[in-house]
Amino acid sequence: MEELILKGKEAKKAARFLATVSTKDKNAALEKIGELLLAKKQEIINENNKDLIAAREKNITKAMLDRLTLIDVRIEDMAKGAIEVAALPDPVGEVIGMWKNKAGLQIGKQRVPLGVIGIIYEARPNVTLDAAALCLKTGNAVILRGGSEAINSNKAIVKVIGDALESVGFPRNCIQLVEDTSRETAREMMRLNEYIDVLIPRGGAGLIKSVVENSNIPVIQTGVGNCHVYVDSETDLEMAKNILINAKCSRPAVCNACETLLVHEKVAEVFLPLAYSGLKEYNVEIRACDKTLKYIPDAVRATEEDWDKEFSDYIIAIKVVDSIEEAIDHINEHGTKHSEAIVTTNYFNSQKFLREIDAAAVYVNASTRFTDGFEFGFGAEIGISTQKLHARGPMGLNELTTIKYIIYGEGQVR
Amino acid sequence: MEELILKGKEAKKAARFLATVSTKDKNAALEKIGELLLAKKQEIINENNKDLIAAREKNITKAMLDRLTLIDVRIEDMAKGAIEVAALPDPVGEVIGMWKNKAGLQIGKQRVPLGVIGIIYEARPNVTLDAAALCLKTGNAVILRGGSEAINSNKAIVKVIGDALESVGFPRNCIQLVEDTSRETAREMMRLNEYIDVLIPRGGAGLIKSVVENSNIPVIQTGVGNCHVYVDSETDLEMAKNILINAKCSRPAVCNACETLLVHEKVAEVFLPLAYSGLKEYNVEIRACDKTLKYIPDAVRATEEDWDKEFSDYIIAIKVVDSIEEAIDHINEHGTKHSEAIVTTNYFNSQKFLREIDAAAVYVNASTRFTDGFEFGFGAEIGISTQKLHARGPMGLNELTTIKYIIYGEGQVR
Repeated sequence: MEELILKGKEAKKAARFLATVSTKDKNAALEKIGELLLAKKQEIINENNKDLIAAREKNITKAMLDRLTLIDVRIEDMAKGAIEVAALPDPVGEVIGMWKNKAGLQIGKQRVPLGVIGIIYEARPNVTLDAAALCLKTGNAVILRGGSEAINSNKAIVKVIGDALESVGFPRNCIQLVEDTSRETAREMMRLNEYIDVLIPRGGAGLIKSVVENSNIPVIQTGVGNCHVYVDSETDLEMAKNILINAKCSRPAVCNACETLLVHEKVAEVFLPLAYSGLKEYNVEIRACDKTLKYIPDAVRATEEDWDKEFSDYIIAIKVVDSIEEAIDHINEHGTKHSEAIVTTNYFNSQKFLREIDAAAVYVNASTRFTDGFEFGFGAEIGISTQKLHARGPMGLNELTTIKYIIYGEGQVR
Repeated sequence: MEELILKGKEAKKAARFLATVSTKDKNAALEKIGELLLAKKQEIINENNKDLIAAREKNITKAMLDRLTLIDVRIEDMAKGAIEVAALPDPVGEVIGMWKNKAGLQIGKQRVPLGVIGIIYEARPNVTLDAAALCLKTGNAVILRGGSEAINSNKAIVKVIGDALESVGFPRNCIQLVEDTSRETAREMMRLNEYIDVLIPRGGAGLIKSVVENSNIPVIQTGVGNCHVYVDSETDLEMAKNILINAKCSRPAVCNACETLLVHEKVAEVFLPLAYSGLKEYNVEIRACDKTLKYIPDAVRATEEDWDKEFSDYIIAIKVVDSIEEAIDHINEHGTKHSEAIVTTNYFNSQKFLREIDAAAVYVNASTRFTDGFEFGFGAEIGISTQKLHARGPMGLNELTTIKYIIYGEGQVR
């Protein structure tokens, strides 16, 4: 707890410094970080090796080991990332609206940093650099708490960042790492609303749930995606197949991948065999409703739970629906309010779907895979919010800012 | 708990209905509510009398009794309020930005309702109507939990609202009241993130703290205001006095009233006697730093705690500072990030203050009392946020919405 409070105080100090630093200076710091990451590549790899040795002894999964591993090209990517963030426009200071009120006050709504951001994440050391760079660009101090598996790698990266910051005259405490990686300390960090303005968990459903349940700090939830593709009664079958295969198979582990296909019964007979042929090429396992089984006999029968699952794998649930209303009801009930798509040629159905689906991103005739800060054109992404407060959908730099009202008067009183 | 879960489920259903209702229909419902409140005035007053009798037996404070009392004109004001909300522009459906991405997708950012809003408040029955009207206008279902002292009044008001909703074809459960006013039920409501999207506490610091500490639902905090007026080294003395007196004395109980005056030492000798003469007219008690005591001998010596107090009364703390930097540091350390004002004729100092003060509203040469949804021109106010996520400063109808991305494609895949 003492480590945390000390870091909290230092972060607040650093946040005050960062709030008024010029864009030019922040960019210089980011470029320096990129430069130093390349210069210290070998040192980071050496520290990462310590983590890898410990991880192998603990028999962690292959996927986790892969995420933990830093090779040359990954550090080069991190360095490139920092430099790319430097090149993005700085949202801080932008006045997004200004008007005169009845009393003649000129009231402006200006973007400012959030203050101190806490990030709790798992065993991906690249998140360390990524989060640090985005927070620095937006003038926020950050307290990072990464997984214990990556502690040596994280320390090495944060040391490089600190050295770079100092070399350009920034306090190194703009970016701090919690070195005590115990669960108790993570819990304590979640109760630090005196020092931390916003908490962003990045990781699996378990981590996010724990933060939501325990935090007294406002949380930005980045969440799971149980996304649907609905093929409407009037549709372009070939386009529907392309979108389905892209949404399901281009990268099934990510949150914007499709998990359930809904098909209008009018097109089920022609579309389902077509879908099947495409899915088979990727060896996708199919969990099907009874009606679907008629057209895809070698599918598994879906259970009720399958409609709620984020498979994150080459598995898809398929259901035939009677109407667009049934499709919308199914999505609003089982979806996680992430990304939902309709494939249709009917104008009114497209409008109905856009209007009635409650999700961060609602698509007509495009793959759900586009829900991403880079694809949306934000130039960066700190995560995809599936909650409704502050930020919804892909979060770019703007979402790491808040606003303040700046008011120019000439003696007005009320 | 059962009452709450049932209400949660009903609210979700109602929210789906409200999300797609036309502005015209929502306005008709609001107008009907206004109409029926007038028609049922006497019934509401009779129920309110039950609360007043019980309250007098419990010896509640005079101020609380005043807030609890519904007389004819207050119900007429509530009715007028509902009709005024009907007349405001509807933010739902507004597309606040639309662009084409690299893949040719047309991506729009559209305002949509938050969903289900929970409001926990104290013994002010007019909040019941106010919150219900603003939520209805923005297409949100609402679960209200008012103080036990106002339970009969609240039931009567919610019954009138429900009757009005039904008469125009809306489900009455768009607006629900938790009838069990125990603390345990309030606590349980704070853990209902499965059904409630946002929780807004309205009331004293104790209530707000309890919600922040216990809620697993995202909270919009409306908070205390320890606001400052800083009179700079170069200033218009008469303007400074006007602003100070307005900020302190026009309504000292509200959150945007001034609590501490900071005066640059260069103008202390001339300004403090001037300020004193103005404050004396309102019998304001002065808690002064040592330097201030030289010019205002009959003031009380301020304690360290006084710099952190929201007096909400005819009391002011006064401190002489060496520099604008000291003023800014004092405000950023002791302020509650609500509303802060500088009175200056120096251009660079005005810019420095606007840039370096961390608060929801930062004023140059105007009274802090303008921090208010109506004064800002929003036409309504659900509260003043002193947190940084989602909403900061006065919250109008826009702040009761979130966004969704609507994406028009023509077969794009990634």
